[in-house]
Amino acid sequence: VTVITLLTDFGTADYFVGAMKGAILSVNPLAIIADITHEVPPQDIHSAAFTLLAAYKIFPPGTIHVAVVDPGVGSARRAIIVRAGEHFFVGPDNGLFTYIYNRESSHEIFHVTAENYFRQPPSTTFHGRDIFAPVAAALSTGVEVEAFGSVIVDAVRLENSLVPEVKDGRVEGRIIHIDHFGNCITNITRDVFDIGNGGSLVIKGETIRKIREFYADNDSNELFAIWGSAGFLEISINGSSAADRLRIKTGDRITGFTE
Amino acid sequence: VTVITLLTDFGTADYFVGAMKGAILSVNPLAIIADITHEVPPQDIHSAAFTLLAAYKIFPPGTIHVAVVDPGVGSARRAIIVRAGEHFFVGPDNGLFTYIYNRESSHEIFHVTAENYFRQPPSTTFHGRDIFAPVAAALSTGVEVEAFGSVIVDAVRLENSLVPEVKDGRVEGRIIHIDHFGNCITNITRDVFDIGNGGSLVIKGETIRKIREFYADNDSNELFAIWGSAGFLEISINGSSAADRLRIKTGDRITGFTE
Amino acid sequence: VTVITLLTDFGTADYFVGAMKGAILSVNPLAIIADITHEVPPQDIHSAAFTLLAAYKIFPPGTIHVAVVDPGVGSARRAIIVRAGEHFFVGPDNGLFTYIYNRESSHEIFHVTAENYFRQPPSTTFHGRDIFAPVAAALSTGVEVEAFGSVIVDAVRLENSLVPEVKDGRVEGRIIHIDHFGNCITNITRDVFDIGNGGSLVIKGETIRKIREFYADNDSNELFAIWGSAGFLEISINGSSAADRLRIKTGDRITGFTE
Repeated sequence: VTVITLLTDFGTADYFVGAMKGAILSVNPLAIIADITHEVPPQDIHSAAFTLLAAYKIFPPGTIHVAVVDPGVGSARRAIIVRAGEHFFVGPDNGLFTYIYNRESSHEIFHVTAENYFRQPPSTTFHGRDIFAPVAAALSTGVEVEAFGSVIVDAVRLENSLVPEVKDGRVEGRIIHIDHFGNCITNITRDVFDIGNGGSLVIKGETIRKIREFYADNDSNELFAIWGSAGFLEISINGSSAADRLRIKTGDRITGFTE
Repeated sequence: VTVITLLTDFGTADYFVGAMKGAILSVNPLAIIADITHEVPPQDIHSAAFTLLAAYKIFPPGTIHVAVVDPGVGSARRAIIVRAGEHFFVGPDNGLFTYIYNRESSHEIFHVTAENYFRQPPSTTFHGRDIFAPVAAALSTGVEVEAFGSVIVDAVRLENSLVPEVKDGRVEGRIIHIDHFGNCITNITRDVFDIGNGGSLVIKGETIRKIREFYADNDSNELFAIWGSAGFLEISINGSSAADRLRIKTGDRITGFTE
Repeated sequence: VTVITLLTDFGTADYFVGAMKGAILSVNPLAIIADITHEVPPQDIHSAAFTLLAAYKIFPPGTIHVAVVDPGVGSARRAIIVRAGEHFFVGPDNGLFTYIYNRESSHEIFHVTAENYFRQPPSTTFHGRDIFAPVAAALSTGVEVEAFGSVIVDAVRLENSLVPEVKDGRVEGRIIHIDHFGNCITNITRDVFDIGNGGSLVIKGETIRKIREFYADNDSNELFAIWGSAGFLEISINGSSAADRLRIKTGDRITGFTE
């Protein structure tokens, strides 16, 4: 059995997600379909790329991740399959998989051109249903990735907002995601910054000196930093929304002082 | 294996959808359950009928589609199974399946009366859990559709808002759905209207002369028409919401001039 | 095959739910995963406990219900497995399973300490992914519940808002849930209150004397009471939201007079 995950900006109120599942099951009724999310902000490729990075590795080897945030649907942008680590990724070549390329140094990218695996005739407006879902389903039945098209080396990459700038003992980071609880996820990882040794963080004029082990470490209404479950430093408040308190938005700057 | 799809107005915050899945899996643990949507506007049968029409045919032959938008639950309205094309539909007899009747000229409608397939005792308030889900699950295990009840010919039908009026070289259509991206789906299909030959559309006082092949055809902030993935003409703007721009609502009129 | 249900306050916009599914499928790719809901109000243990109570028994015997509403994640609160009736429950020991303890008089509670079943190394912030999901998945593969830890008798219980006070021919109840349609679910069950024999209910200054068999019993815009599908008395209006009309919130009082 093969797991196929879905990550889109389609929302869940329309027929779009159902149609993708139907297209997969029509090719491989034994595929196990798991939704990651369909609530990526419309056309926000950066947000989708972060969520995919945070989720993919938890799935079993061989999982096929279909990601469709695709403002260029129907235009000349390419459809691709990425083989990275023991996972596959299917979607548009618009930078969605940038963080996978960074994380998995050994990866190959295939330009999908074998139209016999598409739903016929493919529409110009819904490649999730007509190209990405049936291609992923065909891959899940054992078709070799090489059968879908040739390797390319010029895939589109996002300017990498996941790497903060480090200089003069300072880290210049960004908020890359705000989660359901109002935790503000930064692009700062442990290897570039250790707040533990007398360091501090400044965001929106507030200085944070506390790093905690877990959210409920104490009950005060105090801002703190915490290493989140995706490996990035987060700004949080126990039991309420740090994003609301400081009016933090995705893209906001955060500065870390290592001493 | 058999696929059972679910389409309701239950939302996803309550126990309702979980209960339907539990009721199905209790009868047939091998059924493959796929959500189409649970965010139909409360009690909006027209919206549900459109979404079902747009999604059903993409699923494999033999799929059982359970649709529950059911303001009359517990009253005298009948429970039905529809066999149409190679698909089955289970739900209340309130017009939900009108567009299926139109699209699939060869269909049969069965009045479900065999209470031995119901969860016992069935409630008067939640037939999704107590009647439609277990009936669909029994059907998925191979029970013949004839075993659930007799054929009827007087099923309830919606006044068919899917057919626009055509006269004097004009098409009088309606907006039948607004999707997650703000695209406004009309009830105009290719066979009744060809904007391509010098035609135009008027909605909310705006005249549209452009038809595009795909959303990202150019980057201007211009209104355009496009043949959408469900086969209907849509009014769109690249990268933003046409519905918000023109304050379009479901039910609004649109007029097409063929020359 | 074994069904694993998921009930959380994670929302569906982040990678959290996808990560739990990945963690389950990595241990047992044959597990059947069914979402109950992920839209429990953040950290609202009472709401989650009610939803779980309303849903669990509809699933097949042997189902494993994973519930994660976990403000104390990473702190000293215990992870537990509950065996009750023919179902299993996995989650934090914070009262989430109180209503299961009440409903299923024969139950056993195990403190999960066998770290070899955890994802390694477990984070301090996401036990849904690192502890509860993999433990449930291991249980679904046939590991005996006794292998995860020892029986405890001091599990945390909520003050039981599910039992209304009865005295002097009056029932003092509470609103315990408001559903998607605006129906207001009380904690009043049939065995403590029979409105049918000339009784009445008072909530927010309004007196209700009608009990109906089903929502569409008549078309007036009148408040009525109805025995809901989870076994509790509800306050409703046909076709609109009783909660909006009376500005009812979870926790509000309702008084029943039995004659």
